Amino acid sequence: TTSPRIAVIAGDGIGREVVPPVVELVDTLLRHDGVTARWTTLDWSTERYLATGEYIPPGGLELLAGHDAILLGAVGDPRVPDAVSLGDLLLRIRRHFDQFVNLRPLSSLPGVTMPLRDGAPFDLVVVRENTEGEYADIGGRVHAGRPQEVVVQTSVFTRAGVERLLRFSFQLAARRRGVVTSATKSNALRHSMVFWEEVAADVAKDFPGVEYRHVHIDALAAALVRDPSRFDVIASSNLFGDILADLGAVLMGSIGAAPSGNINPDRSQPSMFEPVHGSAPDIVGRGIASPVGQLLSAVLMLDHLGLADQARRLDGAVRAALASGDAVTPDLGGTADTGGACRAVARVLGAPVP
Amino acid sequence: TTSPRIAVIAGDGIGREVVPPVVELVDTLLRHDGVTARWTTLDWSTERYLATGEYIPPGGLELLAGHDAILLGAVGDPRVPDAVSLGDLLLRIRRHFDQFVNLRPLSSLPGVTMPLRDGAPFDLVVVRENTEGEYADIGGRVHAGRPQEVVVQTSVFTRAGVERLLRFSFQLAARRRGVVTSATKSNALRHSMVFWEEVAADVAKDFPGVEYRHVHIDALAAALVRDPSRFDVIASSNLFGDILADLGAVLMGSIGAAPSGNINPDRSQPSMFEPVHGSAPDIVGRGIASPVGQLLSAVLMLDHLGLADQARRLDGAVRAALASGDAVTPDLGGTADTGGACRAVARVLGAPVP
Ligand SMILES: CC(C)[C@H](C(=O)O)[C@@H](O)C(=O)O
Ligand SMILES: CC(C)[C@H](C(=O)O)[C@@H](O)C(=O)O
Repeated sequence: TTSPRIAVIAGDGIGREVVPPVVELVDTLLRHDGVTARWTTLDWSTERYLATGEYIPPGGLELLAGHDAILLGAVGDPRVPDAVSLGDLLLRIRRHFDQFVNLRPLSSLPGVTMPLRDGAPFDLVVVRENTEGEYADIGGRVHAGRPQEVVVQTSVFTRAGVERLLRFSFQLAARRRGVVTSATKSNALRHSMVFWEEVAADVAKDFPGVEYRHVHIDALAAALVRDPSRFDVIASSNLFGDILADLGAVLMGSIGAAPSGNINPDRSQPSMFEPVHGSAPDIVGRGIASPVGQLLSAVLMLDHLGLADQARRLDGAVRAALASGDAVTPDLGGTADTGGACRAVARVLGAPVP
Repeated sequence: TTSPRIAVIAGDGIGREVVPPVVELVDTLLRHDGVTARWTTLDWSTERYLATGEYIPPGGLELLAGHDAILLGAVGDPRVPDAVSLGDLLLRIRRHFDQFVNLRPLSSLPGVTMPLRDGAPFDLVVVRENTEGEYADIGGRVHAGRPQEVVVQTSVFTRAGVERLLRFSFQLAARRRGVVTSATKSNALRHSMVFWEEVAADVAKDFPGVEYRHVHIDALAAALVRDPSRFDVIASSNLFGDILADLGAVLMGSIGAAPSGNINPDRSQPSMFEPVHGSAPDIVGRGIASPVGQLLSAVLMLDHLGLADQARRLDGAVRAALASGDAVTPDLGGTADTGGACRAVARVLGAPVP
């Protein structure tokens, strides 16, 4: 695309603080290269829900379908249960557009002190299944409110669903350092995870050049925290990837710095890019939220849109601005504010300071 | 009990290396105080399974039922899938005796360097549900081996099951620092975890003196790794507790040092005590396995048997022997071997060195 259509949903909380300057920065970068992005700003948020009863207005998903990508800030507000806010906005978009890969690159950052004493630099990607598994949203209860009440929640794994996720993981590993670690728990989840391992072993056969191993989620979480530098690509189910990616984000120094992409690789449907952090009600309004997670999410988006060169430059600029200290916000151990961090990145890019 | 009946299952791998010296040490400690434990040594292991086709022989569970406690080493062997070894031995005992609390105390240890750069001393307990939930072992598949294959795995939560676990957690917190953190994921698991939160809120009402909060498992895992000193009691489902306890063990310095109890608080059925570590095939035969996880599991066992004074002294001796460096094995950053570490503990206890 030379003129990508990008829908922007700042959402709630600090999403509203980090999204506008990041959009401005990306727009400037693209214009400088002669690329005119068409931005559609959408006010889908908890404010809107409280006013109208809906996160996504009628026709909203069809509107998104006309875009190449969605850049999202954060969703969640203390006034609404997360099960509603996230279920009705975030999870609905992920499912509707069959964004089956949740891509979570995690790497140590220059200028940011890692919380691990012996932390070696690391660079890994959690490839998380994003449309089925534990999040299938199937279940119910009997005898509600009575002593004999029983609640079930069913994970559903399909061969097609698991296979496409693993195939994506192996392909990605083949372009990186060639190692896939698959998260399992077949010793206790003897249906879902035994199956997951079977499919993984099948897919691994098609990638003889990629090293494959599987590790139980408890041991894997522990190993990740012990030494993240031992990992390249981690392929995981929806729930396991959710946990592993948050752990990886802590090891980077702050969850505020971690990006993610909700990707449908076939590109006929829009993919969605969002930082791993939430709406962070505790720091809203103070202007100190790190824009790094949002910026690195924009990097993933540019890559997905085929703007690899711009993606690489933006990534480099974020890292350089961190290394200089000028983009290091309090959560990462520095003193920069949101605006200052964005201006520091813009300066490195040589773009006019917004 | 003045004459507790204790079944001993060393199991596989390093379980066979750490259990015998720990039993000897505990037996000496008790005899010195005039308590004669009656030990039943059972050879239930993968060796036995490979020879006889069974981990637990006919009548085995009835045999265990005649004991006050079970001290277990480790289960697991590369020659047998974990789903079999752990399912047929460990999980079967946990379920048969309705050991619904999996108690995992996690604390920083003297003489052991924590992996976190800014690690403050911590002392927390993961109280993990141990009989239902994600491990209900219910599920199956259709269209096996075909492209349209579908596998389901169902978590089952009962009000009775969740409530007794939470009640235990609040009671424990009331005797400690008075804070319960409950692990949830109600924003995605909208049946099981919404229910979990409801029950927790109900139980919390009965403990006005205990502070209660709930945190999503992804954020909770991250918060635990960021600063374990912020937690007192963590109440969790089976799977979530499995992951959190392994993370906590890493933060202690080594998974080899973490103990656990599988407890049925009503005492009419035996409870089982085992270190969190597995059979560790990679270090078997080298004599370097840390006995600390097994020793601290024995501490939990003594406490459960009503031998609180002996439990306290053994715990103190383990910590003193670690502080001196004499019980610090390679995994914890020292040079002691299994036997040397046990002898160091015995010396502190003033017991004759075995
Ligand atoms: C082996 C496995 C079934 C077991 C579990 O997950 O319960 C183990 O990881 C544990 O934590 O004791
Ligand atoms: C909010 C929640 C449903 C979501 C998830 O678990 O997928 C979030 O934690 C994430 O990781 O994007």
